[in-house]
Order: sequence, then C-alpha cells, then structure tokens
Amino acid sequence: MSGNSFGTLYCVTSFGESHGPAYGGVVDGCPPGLPLKSEDIQKELDRRKPGSSRHVTQRRESDTVEILSGTYDGKTTGTAIGFLVRNEDQRSKDYTAIADTFRPGHADYTYWQKYGIRDPRGGGRASARETVIRVAAGAIAKKWLAERYGVLIRGYLAQLGPIPVPFKSWDAVNQNAFFSSNLEMVKELETFMDNLRESGDSVGARVNVVAENVPVGWGEPVYGRLDAEIAAAMMSINAVKGVEIGAGFASVAQKGSEHGDEMTPRGFQSNNNGGVLGGISTGQPVSVSIALKPTSSIRVPRRTINTKGAAATVQTTGRHDPCVGIRATPIAEAMLACVLMDQALRHRGQCGDVVPPVKLK
Amino acid sequence: MSGNSFGTLYCVTSFGESHGPAYGGVVDGCPPGLPLKSEDIQKELDRRKPGSSRHVTQRRESDTVEILSGTYDGKTTGTAIGFLVRNEDQRSKDYTAIADTFRPGHADYTYWQKYGIRDPRGGGRASARETVIRVAAGAIAKKWLAERYGVLIRGYLAQLGPIPVPFKSWDAVNQNAFFSSNLEMVKELETFMDNLRESGDSVGARVNVVAENVPVGWGEPVYGRLDAEIAAAMMSINAVKGVEIGAGFASVAQKGSEHGDEMTPRGFQSNNNGGVLGGISTGQPVSVSIALKPTSSIRVPRRTINTKGAAATVQTTGRHDPCVGIRATPIAEAMLACVLMDQALRHRGQCGDVVPPVKLK
Amino acid sequence: MSGNSFGTLYCVTSFGESHGPAYGGVVDGCPPGLPLKSEDIQKELDRRKPGSSRHVTQRRESDTVEILSGTYDGKTTGTAIGFLVRNEDQRSKDYTAIADTFRPGHADYTYWQKYGIRDPRGGGRASARETVIRVAAGAIAKKWLAERYGVLIRGYLAQLGPIPVPFKSWDAVNQNAFFSSNLEMVKELETFMDNLRESGDSVGARVNVVAENVPVGWGEPVYGRLDAEIAAAMMSINAVKGVEIGAGFASVAQKGSEHGDEMTPRGFQSNNNGGVLGGISTGQPVSVSIALKPTSSIRVPRRTINTKGAAATVQTTGRHDPCVGIRATPIAEAMLACVLMDQALRHRGQCGDVVPPVKLK
Amino acid sequence: MSGNSFGTLYCVTSFGESHGPAYGGVVDGCPPGLPLKSEDIQKELDRRKPGSSRHVTQRRESDTVEILSGTYDGKTTGTAIGFLVRNEDQRSKDYTAIADTFRPGHADYTYWQKYGIRDPRGGGRASARETVIRVAAGAIAKKWLAERYGVLIRGYLAQLGPIPVPFKSWDAVNQNAFFSSNLEMVKELETFMDNLRESGDSVGARVNVVAENVPVGWGEPVYGRLDAEIAAAMMSINAVKGVEIGAGFASVAQKGSEHGDEMTPRGFQSNNNGGVLGGISTGQPVSVSIALKPTSSIRVPRRTINTKGAAATVQTTGRHDPCVGIRATPIAEAMLACVLMDQALRHRGQCGDVVPPVKLK
Repeated sequence: MSGNSFGTLYCVTSFGESHGPAYGGVVDGCPPGLPLKSEDIQKELDRRKPGSSRHVTQRRESDTVEILSGTYDGKTTGTAIGFLVRNEDQRSKDYTAIADTFRPGHADYTYWQKYGIRDPRGGGRASARETVIRVAAGAIAKKWLAERYGVLIRGYLAQLGPIPVPFKSWDAVNQNAFFSSNLEMVKELETFMDNLRESGDSVGARVNVVAENVPVGWGEPVYGRLDAEIAAAMMSINAVKGVEIGAGFASVAQKGSEHGDEMTPRGFQSNNNGGVLGGISTGQPVSVSIALKPTSSIRVPRRTINTKGAAATVQTTGRHDPCVGIRATPIAEAMLACVLMDQALRHRGQCGDVVPPVKLK
Repeated sequence: MSGNSFGTLYCVTSFGESHGPAYGGVVDGCPPGLPLKSEDIQKELDRRKPGSSRHVTQRRESDTVEILSGTYDGKTTGTAIGFLVRNEDQRSKDYTAIADTFRPGHADYTYWQKYGIRDPRGGGRASARETVIRVAAGAIAKKWLAERYGVLIRGYLAQLGPIPVPFKSWDAVNQNAFFSSNLEMVKELETFMDNLRESGDSVGARVNVVAENVPVGWGEPVYGRLDAEIAAAMMSINAVKGVEIGAGFASVAQKGSEHGDEMTPRGFQSNNNGGVLGGISTGQPVSVSIALKPTSSIRVPRRTINTKGAAATVQTTGRHDPCVGIRATPIAEAMLACVLMDQALRHRGQCGDVVPPVKLK
Repeated sequence: MSGNSFGTLYCVTSFGESHGPAYGGVVDGCPPGLPLKSEDIQKELDRRKPGSSRHVTQRRESDTVEILSGTYDGKTTGTAIGFLVRNEDQRSKDYTAIADTFRPGHADYTYWQKYGIRDPRGGGRASARETVIRVAAGAIAKKWLAERYGVLIRGYLAQLGPIPVPFKSWDAVNQNAFFSSNLEMVKELETFMDNLRESGDSVGARVNVVAENVPVGWGEPVYGRLDAEIAAAMMSINAVKGVEIGAGFASVAQKGSEHGDEMTPRGFQSNNNGGVLGGISTGQPVSVSIALKPTSSIRVPRRTINTKGAAATVQTTGRHDPCVGIRATPIAEAMLACVLMDQALRHRGQCGDVVPPVKLK
Repeated sequence: MSGNSFGTLYCVTSFGESHGPAYGGVVDGCPPGLPLKSEDIQKELDRRKPGSSRHVTQRRESDTVEILSGTYDGKTTGTAIGFLVRNEDQRSKDYTAIADTFRPGHADYTYWQKYGIRDPRGGGRASARETVIRVAAGAIAKKWLAERYGVLIRGYLAQLGPIPVPFKSWDAVNQNAFFSSNLEMVKELETFMDNLRESGDSVGARVNVVAENVPVGWGEPVYGRLDAEIAAAMMSINAVKGVEIGAGFASVAQKGSEHGDEMTPRGFQSNNNGGVLGGISTGQPVSVSIALKPTSSIRVPRRTINTKGAAATVQTTGRHDPCVGIRATPIAEAMLACVLMDQALRHRGQCGDVVPPVKLK
C-alpha cells in the first residue's frame, strides 16, 4: 500500500491537488447497512471549510461532497465508497510570484527534491486542502462508531500561539470560529489573530481530541498498537510536529505512584494513560493532544533559495491561514475516528468470540 | 499485516514472551550483499541488556542472538533473516503474588480484557523484553544505512524524571549506564536513582534520537509520511506517551518567522522542522524526542482490582527497571533506523530514476 | 488494505457500480516524470469498450476518462493519480424483472448474502464494467514499463467456446472484434457468435497474455512470487476460473527432461516455465493463459430462488455480453502490466544495487 | 509487507533455508482461546515428511516442531505464534558437483540473477523444504476453521504424470504414500514411480483440494476475492504452474446454461463455480485443482550454463523427490486453510453484524 492510503480494514485513499479540478477519496471496508447521505459528510466538511471567518484563509470553497459509489437506498452497501470534492476557487496566478522560490518551512522544497517535479500552484499535493478527504472519511467513521458503539469523538483548541485555552465546556466548541471550549476567551483570541494577521506573520496551535465510550480491548500489540496508529494518523496531518497520549510529556517527571492509574470496581481513578495501556484501549476516554506549527506561507520576507539553487528572498501574499491550527480540530477528530474504526473492525475480526472477563463501573 | 509486523519493504516481525523459551524476529526485505555477522547485532543488544548496572532490572540475560537464516558466507542473501534470543532467567514464581491482580498502568489488564486470556508471567507479550527484537532489527538497518548512505543514528537520555540532561557530547553517551551525553551529571543521576530505588517508586524519562546524513527525499506523502511512520514506531515502544519531531510542542508558541527554517545555497540555517517537511526528509538531521512514562511495576502499594473484578491492593516485588527510559536509547535508535531504511527502499522503488535538482552545501 | 485495492508500491484502488454515476480509480506510487495524457489511457479503454461490435453488449458508453490529479504539465508528479469514467447509459429498468431473483452463476446471490444488501441494478459492484478501472491503471503501467524497460505486453483470444484459435500473428489482434490473432478464423467466430446470440445462451473463452523484454529478477519469493501475484490478478478478473503460467496444466504429464528449459550462453532453449522460476522472472517472455466462464446473464430460463428463499425461474433480457471473454484481452493485459510494474518497483527498492552476474544472449 | 509473509489478519511469515540450521514461522492474528499443542501441528507435518516412502526424497528429517510463543496453558493467547523446525540432515556436499552450474527449470538461476548471491546448498531459500512452514501454519488454521465453523479441508492426488487418479473415497487418502483416493490404483502408481526413479527422470502431478462447510459470504471483492487469494496461495507453492477453481479450464467450452449452477430452496444443484461467485463463497464446497511441474533436479544430463555464463552440462545426483506432487497434498490443504481463515476473520471484521438473509437447505 503506497502513501496515499491508510488503514487495514477501514482503508482510506486520497487524491487531488490544491489547484487541480478536484479532491477525491475512497473509503473501503465500511460495514454494510450504515445509513449514509452526503449531508452526513457535508456537516463535518462545513466545520473545516475555509472562508468561514476572517481568521482563516479567504479562499472561497463550498467544499460540496458528491458520493459516487458504495451506497444504495441511503445505506452503505459494504463496497468502496468513492466521493469527490471539486475545487472551485483556484487562483493559480497568486503563485506566479513564488513559482521559482521555496517557502521556508514549506513542503514545496522537499516534494521538488524527491520527485524532481515542480508544481508551484498552491503547494500541489502538499496543500492542507487535502485534509478535506480526511474529514469526509472521518465523518463516516464517526457515524458508524457512534451508532454501533456509542463512541463520541470531540476536539477543541487547547492553545493558540502563546495563549493557553483551558477546557471549559463542549457546548462552546462549535459556537465560535476557533473551536474554543471557552466562549469568554474568544474576544482575546480574535484580538490576537487580528494583530497577527496585520503583522503578516503566523503562529502555531495545540489541539486536543477525546474519544469517549471506546470499549476496552481495541488495538493490536505490539507494533499495531492503538496509540502508535493514532500517533501516525495525527503526525500525518499537515503542520503537526508533536503528539501526546494521556499525560504525554508530563509523564517524564511523574513518579510511578502518581502516573499509574489506580483501579477500583467502579473503574479507573484517573487517566494519565489517555485510555491506552500496552497499545490496547482501557475503556477510558482516549485522549490525544497535538502540536501544529505556524503556517509557512507568510508575508514576512525570508531568506531562501530558488530553483537554480541560488539565494533569494520570499514573501507569500496568497490567501493563507495565519494559523492552520484553527481549522485543525475537525481534522484531528476525523483521523482519530478513522483509526478507532479500523481497530474496531480488526479487533472484531480476531477477537469476535471473546467476552471481556469483567465489566467495570 | 497483523500487529506483530511493521514496515513495507523492510519488514520486521516479532514473537515471544517474557517467560517463554525465546524471543524471535524476522527481518524481510534486506538488500542482498550486506556483510552481516551475529556480532553486528550482538553489539547493539549488549547496549540494551538488563543487569548492566544497579539502576536497571537485575534479571540476568546474556541476550545472545542466533541468526538462523538469510545470510551466507557472512553476507545477507536478500531472503528473510530469522533470529532467536533465548530467555535464560525466567523466574515465573516472582509473579505468583500478582497472578490475580492488575498493576495500575500496566498492560496486563488490557491484554486480559482484549483476549480473555490471563498470562501472569512477567507481562507475557507486553513485557519490555520484546524490544530485544527491535534492537536486533535496527542493528541491521543501522548497518545498511551507514554503509550505503553514511547515515549515522544516535540517541541520548535528555531527561531523567525531573532532571533535564542537556546535550553535551556524543562521546560520553556510551561511557555511562544512563546514555547521558554529559559525564559530569552521572553522579547526580546515580544518586537520584539510588534514592528512587530505595523508595520503591519509579520515574519517567525523555530520550532524544538524531539521524544524520539522511538524504533529501525520503518519505511518502500524505499518509505514509516519514514523520508519521517515525511517530508510530516510537509510540509503539513500551511506555512511550509522546513524540516530537524537531521543535515539537515548542512550535505551538512559535511565530512562522521564527519556526520556518531559512535556506541559503549553503543549506538550512536552523532545524525547527527536525529534518522533515511535508513528510519528506529535507537532508538535515532527522531529530526526534520521546517521553517514556514511569514503570508500572513498583513496590508502592496501590489500589487495583483482581480477576474477579473485586477491589484489591497490589505491590510488585519482582525485578524491574525503576526507569525503563534508562535502557530506551538503543531501542529508539533502532526504531528510527528501521523506519528510515524502509523509506529509503520505498523511495528507491518509486523514485529510483530521479536526480534531485539541486545539492545544497 | 481492503479488497478494492491491490499492489504494494504501484497500488490501484477502484470504486463504482454499474448503475451509479461513475467509476473511479486511484493509481498510487507511479514514478514521477512519466509523460501521461488522458489519451494514453483512452486508447486502451477504447479497446475494451462495449458496443464496438454486435458480438458484445449493446450498452452505449463512451468510457471517457478524466484525469483529476497526479499529473502536471503532461507528466506524472509522483503523487496519486485519480481518474473518473462516468456511466452514461444506465437502464436500471432492465433489471426490474430480476430484482427479486438471482441469476445462476452470478455474484448477485453472494453479495446479497455477504452484505445483507440487495442492489439489483446490473450487478452493482460485481458488474464487469468495473474492469474499466483495471484497464486504465494498466495503461499507465504499460506505458512506464515500455518506456523504462522496453516491456511489451500483448494478449489474444486463444479459444472461443469449443473453437481453439491458435496464435498466428500479433498484427491481426487489433484488427477484429475478437482479438483473434488469426484473421482467417474471424468469419467462423462471427457465425458461432451469431448463432449463440440467437439461442440466448452464452459461452466461455480462453485468453493468452505475454509480456516480452521483462528483465531477469523481478518477483519476491516465497509468497510474493511474481507468478503468485499474476495468478491473483488474473483470478480477480470477473468470470476467470483458471490460470496457467507457461506449460500450465500440461506440465502434469511432462517429464522433467522435457519440461525443464535448457540454457545455453545464448539463452533459454524453450519456455515451459513461462518466464518465471521460483517466483522470479527469468528474462524470457512471461506467458499466462486464463479461462473465462460463460456469462451468467442469459435468456435461457433457469431454476433459481428469490429473495424470500422460494423457488423461482429466471431469464435475463438486459444487454449482456454473450461471451465476456471477447472483451477480456485488454483487461488481462492490464492486470499483467500492473503486477509487473509493482514487482519492478519492489525489486528496484530491495535490489537496486545488484548487478545481475551474467547477461545471456 | 515483503514477500516472506502473506495474509491480512491471519498473517504467516516464514524464514529458513534447506541447508541452514532451521526453518521458522510466525503466525500472527490467530484468535485467542484455541486449544493448541505442538502435536496438532506435528500431525500435519508428519503427512508431508520426507523419507516416508521410497517414492519421495530419502533425506531423513523428523520435522519436529517447537512452539516458542503465542500459547499459554495449552491455548492460543492471541499473540504471535512463533515456531521452529530444525534441519537435521543437511548434506551440503551433495551439492558441490553442481555448485557452479544451474539446473534447468530450477530457481537457483533466478535467485542468483536477482540477488547477485549464489547459495548452492540445496536450493537455499527456493527449496521445497520451506513448505514445512506452510503446513504448520495451515494446521493451526485448519483447527480453528474446524472448531469454529466445522470447515473440513481435504485433498488428494488427482493425476500422477500421465495417469489420472479419479476420486474414489476420502478414507483411502491417508492410507497410502500417494494421497490417492483409490487404493486399487496404488500398485500402478508404485510401478510407475519405480520405473521413473530408475530412469533418473521426474514427472508432474495434479492435486485437488476441497473445503467443505465454508459459510456463504467469505471473500472481499473486487481484488481481494477469495478465489484470487486462493490462486496466489496455490501458485506460490513450489512447482505449481496452474490453478483452477471449480470447472476451471473446462468452463471455456461450456455454455452458460450448463455452467451456471441452478439453485433451489434446498441449495445449489451443481458446483461448476467451485464454491465461489464474484469472489465470495457460496456456501458450497470450495474446490481447487493445481498443476505441479516435474522436479528439476534429475539425473538425466542437460544443457545449461555455469556461473561464468559458459556452456555446461548438469546432472543432479542428490536426494530429490522424483515427483514433488506426491507430497503436495498436505501443502495445498494448508494454503487453502490459511486463505480461508484470513478471509473468515476479515469478513467478521467488516460484516460481523450481517445476518445472511436466507439459509438454503
């Protein structure tokens, strides 16, 4: 399986470039009989959509999904679900200015060196617009996980540049452009972004995602661990530079007597492990935190090289998110959903006859 | 491919339990003609070996590797390399006290719930002793990467519990039991560990790994990214709860003008990206940092449940590492080597005819 | 990887149903820099197209391919190549008569039992129309194999029902609707098909495919053998019930002194092995023969069951190929091309540094 | 996944060479709780063992299997099952005479050209002795399939060189050295083999395998078809040159009205399709037939080349099966078992909630 697919039983394949005619995806292995309409997917795509506030890219895309196969009479058939999202607002001319130079921190340099091909239009395949496919595939996974197991997957912005945004309430998350769980902080975030945008610079972000009601037992030791596959899925999102499960890097300084989550017949007494032990879900919420780096396309002039290898200066004036992390919440949720669904199916394949010995709580 | 294998072209398969007769591994896809003797592997296994200082488990294992196939006349043949490491010092009786209770933070609970089977001896498959196979597979990858591309992979302990151990010199790393790059700090680390051991508690650690001389162009966008596969490989190591590439979580608070590594004809001017952009290697050092949680097997009494689901208390008195992170450096190096080698082969498969357009420096 | 994808480095994914809006495919792993236009694919699709003679289904489809990604400026970029073939002539009403009954020998029964879903329109995913994706993916593989290694892949109809059609000349193959290599036999084949069509019955066929100029060394022992993957690829084509490599079933009655192909410094003296020994290409032509069963959709009344499990009689009056084997030649060529290309890339990945010790001829 | 592994959820990995210390295998993905002792595997290995009659190789091997992991207390744990079969009777000196020449029809030529390495001892990795691992892996699959679903997998010799051996009775099969289902023909087969052995030549064979009680619904369209994976598994067995499912090549000349298996509420009325339609099991017996070529190691002198590429003559005087097909029955059964088990687990993974709409019979 090459790099544009992932998953073993719930397998997602993606194609498309930022300035080509369309993005497309194939979801293979979805169980049959799941009620599925394009609106189920559209709902999630709309959460990720560009142009929804002044704080994100002003590219105008309706991001309308068209399901081409794999459903009949409003239900999945068990065969491959193909779908398209047409690109509508490609302004390739925005890129003529930087056709021959590379943006520091951008993938256009490495794609060029790897493939020997220079597609200067909007980052080509490296564009974060590819995540539209992840969100669509995740929407299907979320729906199945919710209907079959009651799994609930939600995320929020945990930090915007230097500003921590501590968790306050799930209700708030979808009521603001930042996926902030704290509505009172929105004003501060807006001011920060307005100043940032004006400066022509960009900033990073931290996003947290949690999956509740995950049954105990999902995950395949030792290399196919649930947390290992979550880490890969998250790190494969554009701009992600770090992944934590549970206590994450805080566990470095913890004592064993502090970190190890005690159990009673009513369940675990804490969740430092983030819902995964030995690569297998514990039955507690699966909690993940990711770091997203600042956007590389900025108006601040920077030293770089051109396609001749000569010194150059670059400034990017196209339409870009000054903080890609702002729109990353639905993407991270989607990736977590895809991994969980794949592991759910694999677990059922191997261990479909196992009755978990005890039920806590 | 099930969970005990990883890799696409350089594929590693592992089997064995802590208290069974042996661990074994299969490395498939190694190029033919690589000079390979058991000493090449043994050398790395010895770095990871238990009982080498008072700060790690006192289990006595020679960890002797026996190559069973895949070489002829001192060279790899291109066929599957099978090898065994026999267990020599299994004291299953150490585990009778905890046969019916679960250690908080240990995988014995999740294995039991997933498979419906209780193997109480030393964690069974979940034991960190499994990493012997990773180190062996990594030894082969390291050798090939070094001989074919001059890639050099090295790691060190960056933090022991609350004590940061800043990088000082590579020479120091193999001269002390902690893989500390700073010999002057060893005394402090020893004192800390002596006190910790006496308290019956355990602690976490941070390990950094760096691969130098990695050519530009390795890694498969978009899901098969080099950094995504590194993240999975690292997170699959026992006790790892977090992974960072380059600036990692620090990039959250960085500005784009600070994070994006400028380029000149002489190369990159910084390495916030940790040697990977868009999932493809940049030609700079690939740098990774991981968080390891504290050992779950401690003498401190903790609340737990037993196999009936009833409340219980557990204390673990067997021979355990009070800090699994101490021996993790060679393991992390090995996992990085396996991922890089797999990506090197895959890159050559698809892009074997590409000449990178420019050569920096 | 789920069932709608195949290949390790050259990976093909397919979606679509006979009576949905479109078929689509994704080719991942194609080397960058290959000149590729939609005409390169269209040319092969036209060879497989329905309605091209009175001997095949009269469904009217232009089978126009639209490339959506993976190329730039007329060349492949190394990223996933997505493409669509829209369905234009779906007459779902043709199927209302058989909506509740199953055709003997057709997959509609097994799909229904596997997935619990009944899509009666033209066989849904099981339709032979899916092979349009194989032919498109194969067209890209053929082009790369020809340009990079001079590999030439051609097939022909070797038997039509009871009539053997011995090989005569490659030139003839594309000059008649049957892919017969013997133009003098076309009249006989036409008469046979006219009578068959009138009778409402169908018939099987044998198709042979040959790949010339395949270098020695492609194929991965022991399970990933070149011939094993060819066998899977061929058997995955709708209606195929048998696969032979080289002498095939004739080798059962051969002596070793007859079957084993002698070698001289000028090369092999015969090709009973069909270009594969031990799963690795020998450098001789790779030769494959496949058996295709007669179409199951016939006008002859047959005993069957309905969706209630009750006895029923079925006759199929839609537009069907009375011999699916007639259009199978380009499909078999395409599958052989995909397998060879995948193995070529994998061989280069693992053995890119090997210089074959001798060159025969 | 590289070439020495196969299977998606039930994954088999193999290593070892004919003249190395041991063969080893890893079975990953076996459901937990299956009673499994080494005798369960040994029983099948003994059926394949060399030296059991004068008609097969006289190499003396006890083929004793040692299970190294994956079981506890006589049951599978769900983790990887590792096992070894030591080589005991390697006479490498037998091969000094042919160290520099290649046997026509043998894989030693292609291995050498692919890998650039010459291991002249008994064919190295290409030896049919590798099938010991397949038989062991198949023994586990057979046991699970029988206990979980009542699946019964049996094979027999259907033709020995020119002599067809029509099916007579399953009872006979294990009562003679040929796996003949007809005891009355054994004398004729013995005489044929005695003459053949004396002549120094070898001969091919046909073996049939049948799996009964396979539930309807196993198999993944469109590329992961049950029959496609069976074809690959069979073609991957040493010496196999052809595979048929059901009517196989006979379906070429059949009419649709003859081939298509009619159904009544009591079930199918014939089995031309061999238990597979559209790549999915029908609920009828899965029936497979394979062609095995004659052994390439014969005493008859043959033209060949040597390692310098110069003309040479070769005669092979080591201990070889004059008909590898004689011992192939348990191997073919094993491969069928592995494929069925993998598909059973995958089907359960995706379609575990589906209730097949009707139950025939």
